[in-house]
Amino acid sequence: MAPHPTPDATRLGPGHAVLAFDVGGTDTKSALVDASGRVLGLRRTPTPLDSADPAGTIVASLAVLAREHLAAAPGIVPVAAGVSVPGLVDELAGIGMFASNLGWRDAPIRSIAETALGLPVAFGHDVRAAGDAEHRLGAARGYGDVVVLAIGTGIASALVLGGRPYAGGGFAGEIGHSLADPLGERCPCGAIGCLETIASAGAIARRYAAASGTPVGGAREVLDAATAGDPLARRVWDDAVEALAEAIARLVAILAPEAVVIGGGLAQAGPALFGPLGARLDALLSFHRRPALVHAELGDDAGLLGTALAARDLAGARRDGDSA
Amino acid sequence: MAPHPTPDATRLGPGHAVLAFDVGGTDTKSALVDASGRVLGLRRTPTPLDSADPAGTIVASLAVLAREHLAAAPGIVPVAAGVSVPGLVDELAGIGMFASNLGWRDAPIRSIAETALGLPVAFGHDVRAAGDAEHRLGAARGYGDVVVLAIGTGIASALVLGGRPYAGGGFAGEIGHSLADPLGERCPCGAIGCLETIASAGAIARRYAAASGTPVGGAREVLDAATAGDPLARRVWDDAVEALAEAIARLVAILAPEAVVIGGGLAQAGPALFGPLGARLDALLSFHRRPALVHAELGDDAGLLGTALAARDLAGARRDGDSA
Repeated sequence: MAPHPTPDATRLGPGHAVLAFDVGGTDTKSALVDASGRVLGLRRTPTPLDSADPAGTIVASLAVLAREHLAAAPGIVPVAAGVSVPGLVDELAGIGMFASNLGWRDAPIRSIAETALGLPVAFGHDVRAAGDAEHRLGAARGYGDVVVLAIGTGIASALVLGGRPYAGGGFAGEIGHSLADPLGERCPCGAIGCLETIASAGAIARRYAAASGTPVGGAREVLDAATAGDPLARRVWDDAVEALAEAIARLVAILAPEAVVIGGGLAQAGPALFGPLGARLDALLSFHRRPALVHAELGDDAGLLGTALAARDLAGARRDGDSA
Repeated sequence: MAPHPTPDATRLGPGHAVLAFDVGGTDTKSALVDASGRVLGLRRTPTPLDSADPAGTIVASLAVLAREHLAAAPGIVPVAAGVSVPGLVDELAGIGMFASNLGWRDAPIRSIAETALGLPVAFGHDVRAAGDAEHRLGAARGYGDVVVLAIGTGIASALVLGGRPYAGGGFAGEIGHSLADPLGERCPCGAIGCLETIASAGAIARRYAAASGTPVGGAREVLDAATAGDPLARRVWDDAVEALAEAIARLVAILAPEAVVIGGGLAQAGPALFGPLGARLDALLSFHRRPALVHAELGDDAGLLGTALAARDLAGARRDGDSA
């Protein structure tokens, strides 16, 4: 596993003390943020899976984590918690609509988390939380219209349009499940030729293994093989870059973001990704507004930081409401 | 030319009296709107082309039209004007950035129109004005997240996201210039395989004529030939429907609009368009939010009505400002 650096201690700045939970399909990241903005006790624990009561079991595990964080930092009293989850999320209603890895459907996660944690809960979507953190603290800062793309096992995105996050009722940003190849393979989502069947880090490794008969540890190995002259690896890598460039070009025609911030495992390829991606994008566009292609800044913890920001926003809004 | 009905006299409702100009590549529509919302003297005149001073010449023609409208309706005193133009438009800056048919680049049209008309001018984009009218008065009413698609000679769209128009600095909504076929023909815009080279009413007629050697008057004739069993016409029509369905499916993955409102000449095909388009869209989507496909309501005058609404908004804001 990649090293897991502690986020810049000053990044979040002063504000309310909050708990933050970024629930992933495999692991859950959690931390306590103090009033000075320090991220305390950041840890990664396996997300419990329970097909009988997926949401209830996960929320119960968050309550256990909360007690442990509080016990480790006596004197810090969080006034709100943030909980972010993957899948389809209706932030306004507080509902986890669907998460293929976790198994819930239309689960009222915000309300059960508020009961279990005894705190007001800012409930959100993991990738939109990460996008919000990149927009407020990271590589998307200063842009009014910006797309934050996370390319890892799958491909997802967060949209900031006119300076505000756009969620489309919880369904927006699913660029990983936009059509890339009408003659492509069926995606586990049920549609044909989704971008993430070609261009996610997971797809690159899987497609190379399937074509070569040689299992690989990840997309990085495919890139290394391509660089070393393996024509099969080159084709798999180039197909991924082309599909990403075409998807970004289509996004540009519709939304004209000033920048596309790219994070997730695949972004670690750096210039080997950004160079050819930019060149193909230039070739595909004409009069369009060409976005800057920018490497994400906050890394793996962007989702947790965004979740903490959302909890602080909620705490601030409640306090303002009290004093009004 | 299609008949040109007078818009519903009550559609705009009471408000400020304004002048409205919808400048098109061929014709300019203009009208005076009175305080009861009646659209008076609606007319269509050729847009003057002058490569030496394209914006100045067009604005001068609007001043002539303004005098004629005022002379025909003595006693009505407009307090603002709306001017909408095609191409790339920066509404905030009041700049016509580019319009291939009209020839300007970075023309400060709002300021020269304010001088020529002696009125505050709401300057905007023709398709976004039409989209705004559909959103406030027509088929897009009641939707918070909605795309209004105009399919005629070209294909353009207006986006309303989170209840507000989204312009992307003037570059958004260019779905007609999004990639539909990487192996397709070069679009006049310079890019390859743009949607409007396959699926606009103009492209359907042109592609059928090129493939069959038989000139046709428009997309309607191609549809009629397809319905009568002409396999070439069937292929051209089906290619257009497929390209539209794929483009809408991609739009849905990113933006998840509640509805896609379709207007312009091609929408007049009615069920012959909406039926297969909906069926293909259903086949292309999986967990996505399936938008309603809705026929535009305001027809050809949507752009003029939206332009009048923008002028009224501006007049209202100035009056509010005066009294503040």
